Amino acid sequence: MNEKILGVLGGMGPLASAHFMVRLTLLTPAATDQEHIPAVLWSDPRVPDRTAAKRGGPDPLPALLHGIAGLKAAGCGAIAIPCNTAHGWYDEMAAAAGVPVLHIVDASAAALREVTPKGGVVAVMGTAATLAMRLYQDRLEHSGWQVITPDADEMARLVSPGIALVKANKVAESYPLLAEMVTILAGRGAASVILGCTEIPLGIQAGPYKTLPIPLIDSIDSLASAAIAWARRGATGT
Amino acid sequence: MNEKILGVLGGMGPLASAHFMVRLTLLTPAATDQEHIPAVLWSDPRVPDRTAAKRGGPDPLPALLHGIAGLKAAGCGAIAIPCNTAHGWYDEMAAAAGVPVLHIVDASAAALREVTPKGGVVAVMGTAATLAMRLYQDRLEHSGWQVITPDADEMARLVSPGIALVKANKVAESYPLLAEMVTILAGRGAASVILGCTEIPLGIQAGPYKTLPIPLIDSIDSLASAAIAWARRGATGT
Repeated sequence: MNEKILGVLGGMGPLASAHFMVRLTLLTPAATDQEHIPAVLWSDPRVPDRTAAKRGGPDPLPALLHGIAGLKAAGCGAIAIPCNTAHGWYDEMAAAAGVPVLHIVDASAAALREVTPKGGVVAVMGTAATLAMRLYQDRLEHSGWQVITPDADEMARLVSPGIALVKANKVAESYPLLAEMVTILAGRGAASVILGCTEIPLGIQAGPYKTLPIPLIDSIDSLASAAIAWARRGATGT
Repeated sequence: MNEKILGVLGGMGPLASAHFMVRLTLLTPAATDQEHIPAVLWSDPRVPDRTAAKRGGPDPLPALLHGIAGLKAAGCGAIAIPCNTAHGWYDEMAAAAGVPVLHIVDASAAALREVTPKGGVVAVMGTAATLAMRLYQDRLEHSGWQVITPDADEMARLVSPGIALVKANKVAESYPLLAEMVTILAGRGAASVILGCTEIPLGIQAGPYKTLPIPLIDSIDSLASAAIAWARRGATGT
């Protein structure tokens, strides 16, 4: 058992990928060390900022492909990337990987189905780049959901600062901004909200998030569940 | 900056090494992703049980050296091992690594100095193998501390089950066992206690540990601090 090694392309940010490793462990049914999933985490926080790149900043792709190559060299049989925005370079990474790359939007959609039937309204919170690239909107609308997102003012006032605070290790200060955004989206008709940036669950969980009015779909946990399902399948499965 | 990559030989257990990555991140002064420490975590929970090996079980050394080789191939400039018991194979790993391997006992001793002056009495909790190998006792007594440890009955009743519960993802159930042990050691004269197994801080932190009667030295945080100090030194430093 556990012949397969999971590769994790992380560091974007480092707290999110470390937290992903914690959640991967806690969500795995296991009674001893040896029943857990072997994994290699490539945590390179020097990857140029993904959101800035979409505005003309340095290209993160070479650093992303360097990480993919490192994980392949370590013998990984699939790769998970706990950074939503990095999925803007998914096709290039998947082509280079030669092994399955688990898509965080597909993983989140699987969790979404549990709380909001297709046809319902789901909100997505993410970085400005994730939303501008329509990483979630295109895939979810294609599957039949209606998708709403924060407007530009809300992004500038609540979501982008909330994400930046987590990246600066200030998770408690991030909570009120992100919680206000969830409440606004609920008031606008969302039946649930996808936390589509891996920093957002960390900020949300630093406060009384269980009091928020609609279910939250955690893209970190969704990706961890997809990775566990991969590890549980036969050695040749994808 | 941040040219150096930290290697983390983990998976022993996987929750401890994931938590080490979280603490490494949170203890690093950083305002953006790019200011964090690049790291590769080799989390192989299949490494044969270190405590069982000291009683005649399968030898973990080949798996440990395989991990060291993987971290070297990834370009790591130093290696941290968030498993105290694995330090029973420290000399063999250090010889194979060719880069500095940070010693968790030295890291914990640095933290101990902050709370208990040399000459004082410090207790050490760890696996039966860590204590039998005298990983902490020899180094700390050599530096002038007096060291006390749980007796065989306390190991069997409190410490070993507390560690096993964390490895089985039952951290809350681990707390009362480990907390009782801390209280017993305080009653026996310990001025502080080193949590010398990386599962123990996880169990202790699942309960009201701040009410315990003596300071706790967390070997995970101590090792993370040593790694951050290494990363902050010049590129050629050890």
